[in-house]
Amino acid sequence: MAGPIDFYFDFSSAYSAIARLQIADVAQRHGRELRWRAISLGVIFRELRHAPPAPDTAKGRYIWHDVERSAREAGMAWRWPDPFPFNSIPAARGFHWLQVNDEAHALPFLHAMFEGSFSEGRNLSTPDAVAGLAHELGLDADAILAGMAQPEIKARLQTTTADAVVAGVFGAPTLIADGEMFWGADRLAYLDRWLQYGDDRPAGHPHSHQEPPE
Amino acid sequence: MAGPIDFYFDFSSAYSAIARLQIADVAQRHGRELRWRAISLGVIFRELRHAPPAPDTAKGRYIWHDVERSAREAGMAWRWPDPFPFNSIPAARGFHWLQVNDEAHALPFLHAMFEGSFSEGRNLSTPDAVAGLAHELGLDADAILAGMAQPEIKARLQTTTADAVVAGVFGAPTLIADGEMFWGADRLAYLDRWLQYGDDRPAGHPHSHQEPPE
Repeated sequence: MAGPIDFYFDFSSAYSAIARLQIADVAQRHGRELRWRAISLGVIFRELRHAPPAPDTAKGRYIWHDVERSAREAGMAWRWPDPFPFNSIPAARGFHWLQVNDEAHALPFLHAMFEGSFSEGRNLSTPDAVAGLAHELGLDADAILAGMAQPEIKARLQTTTADAVVAGVFGAPTLIADGEMFWGADRLAYLDRWLQYGDDRPAGHPHSHQEPPE
Repeated sequence: MAGPIDFYFDFSSAYSAIARLQIADVAQRHGRELRWRAISLGVIFRELRHAPPAPDTAKGRYIWHDVERSAREAGMAWRWPDPFPFNSIPAARGFHWLQVNDEAHALPFLHAMFEGSFSEGRNLSTPDAVAGLAHELGLDADAILAGMAQPEIKARLQTTTADAVVAGVFGAPTLIADGEMFWGADRLAYLDRWLQYGDDRPAGHPHSHQEPPE
């Protein structure tokens, strides 16, 4: 029973911007449906009383550097948006509205959002900025702007975020397949092998005592 | 100028137990000296007011599971020690004493410590337990026990830990080469490529807009 892969992401998550480049290939390779599930990480952080490392700490400085290195590894041009992190709720609502009302344009919008924010460094944190991006893609900016304000669209983002918390999500990106959870852009290779072998994967590189190379 | 690789680790760090299996190969491949630097992560966490995720949180549960999966990927048998985390200061002092007084046995001791703790689930948190492990390796248990109590050995652990904080270390394992820092067993591949290409590595997998595979 090959179930879907849930890709939980936040439009303001730098590692989500990287992972979204590779996840479709993984899903396709294993014949799995891929469900793109936009959430609000800010809501989850408040609920879990969790916060990302502050940029003026050793961990914060490292993470920023690691994001840039990870983007380079993935072949993605990188430019931090200002402000960062930013309010991703308008983008998430716009994406949910497209999934319901214009599904064919949901993924092009997603990629344009991530590239606008993290490759071009644009500030796409307001409903107007998100609608402007949609306009650049040839979409109906007014319809998206109105869609973001619809109660059922707001509820859809809330429900998706609540689903994520129930599933155990505490950060983004998070991938879940058949109940197995993978957190971080750096876990796509693990997901790939898990989809192939499950828990029965024979060890690829057996190790025991290693003598020093003296 | 090919400088050394500093491998900062804590004997109670699960991801350190995994990374120590692979780091010697990476260093050897690039002709780099490898410096094994035992630190006390507990001291660093207190200084940085940082704590690992609690095991009864979503993140804590995930990390425990990810450790087991990462060990399987690395071909390492896994059994959690009880208690975990444990007091790693006796082991760290024993290792520092060996580095100063019996260098040829420092690495066999290191691997035996990690395998005893994380493959066999033994409690190696006391000076007597660490000395007992040394005895099993054919080393002089009494000499190590006395060595752990030497002021200069205690100071060596403190200095190494302080060096780590100055270098920006906030977790373990952390690898530093030519000032470039890598945190986590999952960053060995990045270190490997960075040692080869530095910051000039051409992108291996260029990406741009990806259309959905519809």
